[in-house]
Amino acid sequence: MTAKSQVQWTEDALTALRVGKGFRLDDVDPESTPGYAGDKAASKADLAAGLAELAEYQERLFAASRGGTSKDSVLLVLQAMDSAGKGGIIRHVVGGVDPQGIELAAFKAPTEEELAHDFLWRIEKRVPRPGMIGVFDRSHYEDVLIGRVRGLAEPQEIERRYGAIVDFERRLAESGTRIIKVMLHISHAEQGARLMERLERPDKHWKYNPGDVDERARWPEYMAAYQTVLSRTSTDEAPWFVVPANRKWYARLAVQALLLEVLESIDPQWPVADFDVALEKERLRATL
Amino acid sequence: MTAKSQVQWTEDALTALRVGKGFRLDDVDPESTPGYAGDKAASKADLAAGLAELAEYQERLFAASRGGTSKDSVLLVLQAMDSAGKGGIIRHVVGGVDPQGIELAAFKAPTEEELAHDFLWRIEKRVPRPGMIGVFDRSHYEDVLIGRVRGLAEPQEIERRYGAIVDFERRLAESGTRIIKVMLHISHAEQGARLMERLERPDKHWKYNPGDVDERARWPEYMAAYQTVLSRTSTDEAPWFVVPANRKWYARLAVQALLLEVLESIDPQWPVADFDVALEKERLRATL
Repeated sequence: MTAKSQVQWTEDALTALRVGKGFRLDDVDPESTPGYAGDKAASKADLAAGLAELAEYQERLFAASRGGTSKDSVLLVLQAMDSAGKGGIIRHVVGGVDPQGIELAAFKAPTEEELAHDFLWRIEKRVPRPGMIGVFDRSHYEDVLIGRVRGLAEPQEIERRYGAIVDFERRLAESGTRIIKVMLHISHAEQGARLMERLERPDKHWKYNPGDVDERARWPEYMAAYQTVLSRTSTDEAPWFVVPANRKWYARLAVQALLLEVLESIDPQWPVADFDVALEKERLRATL
Repeated sequence: MTAKSQVQWTEDALTALRVGKGFRLDDVDPESTPGYAGDKAASKADLAAGLAELAEYQERLFAASRGGTSKDSVLLVLQAMDSAGKGGIIRHVVGGVDPQGIELAAFKAPTEEELAHDFLWRIEKRVPRPGMIGVFDRSHYEDVLIGRVRGLAEPQEIERRYGAIVDFERRLAESGTRIIKVMLHISHAEQGARLMERLERPDKHWKYNPGDVDERARWPEYMAAYQTVLSRTSTDEAPWFVVPANRKWYARLAVQALLLEVLESIDPQWPVADFDVALEKERLRATL
């Protein structure tokens, strides 16, 4: 079922973008707009309508957790090559939601303390509480992406992590968290253009790091590492979605649609009052 | 200097709303709109224009900290009686800013672990990092407000806290945090109407708590506790601003104006590249 508010979808995003059995990253065209019939202009109305729907769902999700009856939460995991548009998703999709209902965690290079622990130690501390929409800007997947490409851990340790991730995410799902894992997929050429833009605009220089070109040189290795991640960790409890991201408008709309469809399936309800409403009105009226 | 983008101010909000020597809370009319010449309709355009300006300042503040050269951050402290509109400020003013630049902390009743420490222990852990706009939804001031009204600590401990707060905030300011403390001020009658609305709408029941009427019965004691807070802790390093809040549109606009004026005075700049831009363009071009 496609999101109610976004009218130009021909297929729901949860199906159109899902990484299933036999998925090959190579087959995804980063320019494509799977499942969506509209163009950039049409997407604006859909994104705005989706924002309003998302805001209501978020408030209901939050409210439902207050009575202590619902344990539901949502976790959006964002992974991507540099400049693929994670920041834009957070600004334009997540940013449309009440900040009181969002728990955003950005995972940078681990600190010495974090490295001394298992790689999931710092992740566990940031999983969303009931009622919240958690957003991971990078995640534990860095430990099998850059971790593998840069040889930051022994091969057998990298190997162990895939299974540890699947177990961890299953436990998270069992405790009430709906997990949506998104890889924003841009082409090598598009990344080049975006990095060049950062170099051309002095107000974007702070976003550029000479290391970006070094990572870019390892593009094929990263794609291979992503392929392995997608093949081995896309489960029913914590599925992966590959979102073509050369067109920023599509990527934003698609991530919003994924959130909307998951929230629609949770369908959180306003909790019933656990106090006597008539009595409280009387008590309050006496103070007016 | 009033915020550039909000054109209907006749006086800057930092002056019009400032708690200075001899300030009396009783003198503030919660219906008033100090310093602002526009009406509700005009405020919409000003709020929208302010949002765009705030978004740019936030990005600059964030960028300026990346080089490690700037330690500037902003901390907005929100205090108010129940239903005064803290949530609306967070949704409509803070919510307009990139979530990546916001650190929001909501302080509820302290846990057992928090109570075992000094009252500022849990606060210190949530102060904003350089480049961030921190927002406290309630704060250490609860410990001299409900703490005093409900006798949650001995009078001499409450007394000690005023000085401890002033010292703590001075240290925070010295390390680069610009502190804006806001009391949203509604009238007793307005609170009654807002609580009644919560009781009348089933989708608002979850926001209501029978304890709200009990706290309301102590309104005069709370106002006295606020008066003491305002008199004793409004300093040059961490001034208080009392924002009349019966009109929600004014309160939102005023808090936005306070943020804008403080950011204008910081005037964060895009950092200069610490790499050779021409060389990087060349390296990147070789990969295209």
